[in-house]
Amino acid sequence: MPDIRIVLVEPSHPGNIGGAARAMKTMGLSSLALVNPKRFPDPQADWRAAGALDIVEKAQVYDTISAAVKDSVLVAGTSARTRHIPWPMMTSAEFAEYIHSKFKPKDCVSVLFGREDNGLTNDELNLCNRHIRIPSSDLYGSLNLAMSVQIVAYDLFCQALQVRQEDSDSETWDKPLATFAEVNDFLEHLQSVLLRVGFSDPEEPRKAEIRLRRLFGRIDMDHTEVQILRGILTHIEKGFRSESDLNDNAQKSDFG
Amino acid sequence: MPDIRIVLVEPSHPGNIGGAARAMKTMGLSSLALVNPKRFPDPQADWRAAGALDIVEKAQVYDTISAAVKDSVLVAGTSARTRHIPWPMMTSAEFAEYIHSKFKPKDCVSVLFGREDNGLTNDELNLCNRHIRIPSSDLYGSLNLAMSVQIVAYDLFCQALQVRQEDSDSETWDKPLATFAEVNDFLEHLQSVLLRVGFSDPEEPRKAEIRLRRLFGRIDMDHTEVQILRGILTHIEKGFRSESDLNDNAQKSDFG
Repeated sequence: MPDIRIVLVEPSHPGNIGGAARAMKTMGLSSLALVNPKRFPDPQADWRAAGALDIVEKAQVYDTISAAVKDSVLVAGTSARTRHIPWPMMTSAEFAEYIHSKFKPKDCVSVLFGREDNGLTNDELNLCNRHIRIPSSDLYGSLNLAMSVQIVAYDLFCQALQVRQEDSDSETWDKPLATFAEVNDFLEHLQSVLLRVGFSDPEEPRKAEIRLRRLFGRIDMDHTEVQILRGILTHIEKGFRSESDLNDNAQKSDFG
Repeated sequence: MPDIRIVLVEPSHPGNIGGAARAMKTMGLSSLALVNPKRFPDPQADWRAAGALDIVEKAQVYDTISAAVKDSVLVAGTSARTRHIPWPMMTSAEFAEYIHSKFKPKDCVSVLFGREDNGLTNDELNLCNRHIRIPSSDLYGSLNLAMSVQIVAYDLFCQALQVRQEDSDSETWDKPLATFAEVNDFLEHLQSVLLRVGFSDPEEPRKAEIRLRRLFGRIDMDHTEVQILRGILTHIEKGFRSESDLNDNAQKSDFG
């Protein structure tokens, strides 16, 4: 992963600085730059940062965007605006994919986030190599500043994970999966119990069977689950056996 | 897109309710449910909601999770925890893909978010059909509550965009899906039958119950399948009832 710097341009609310820091840290980012923050440092920034206080404390403060991004090989600006002059525009996810394929770990890539109310000005957007758009609702697309940082950081993190894990193994489960034979034996056991307890759909008996087979067939049961279900069936059988034994005894006494 | 309900379980900070509402609206979601919020309504919730005040105002408040998700065909719980018994676990993006391929626009899908400090309890997670994990840093993975809502909503929105673009047809199923209440009633019926037939794992009785809940929870049963299973349970009950009747009669004749 390239060296990502998050740059907040003139944030008004210190809470958003803390929120952005926390969002960054949860996604493995640590480099935060502030351009003319209205209030900083501020207890509200510290409070909202929660466990990411270290990121707030080592945030660099600058007077200008140019100073904040000086050593960057790429500068991207987040923008909701459709601009008069179109700029190379990517979604947040496309941007993550792009910089991972394009840049090396030591390359510094800066991502600018504008003011809470007005975003980045056209002049500021003109400083950027790329514009990033976060997909959002046409009816209300106004994301909170720290939320925007969270999403961009999330996409970067997921992209990094994907690159790392491309040949990884999937979900782990605590028990080995049941074999076809185990599931089949269970289904036959079930069928014999259903006969015994007198279950049948009088109108469409065969259909219920097929539906049960489909139900238990699509569930990918593990070995233990099949054993539990068979244990239940055995208990039901025992109960019905003792009932029929009683019936047998009753009959015997009638004719004894 | 299915009908997504965001369910916040016992949120402490009203600011997070407002932040979640705004996050939802930017991603086209509108249905918010609150289970025992500590402070609600509250001016801080309204303030943080910004342009999503309508979502805060029409949020539904419930006493229990079961009531909040009653009519849902799928309940998913967000979880950071590695649990003793693993549950079907998906990342936020996988979940978005899954529900778009699986469910229809009118199907209600609920996503639970736990308390700011402790998340969801194990018992609450056991109510869920699926668990959702938001990929995050190993060093500090503690996302703010509203941020978690933002990411899940973002993944759902991006997936909806993609599906719309692919203009694909999804898997068709012949019967309507079972609701949470239907499945829950079935599980309670099953439990009472298991008691009746004398089934229990003597060494770890509670574990078998949880495993059965997980088994039937991840299968996404339809209405007819639940009816078939309940029909079977009713037949088993009848059988055991007649047996105990016989026992009663036997006793009566002893003392008659």
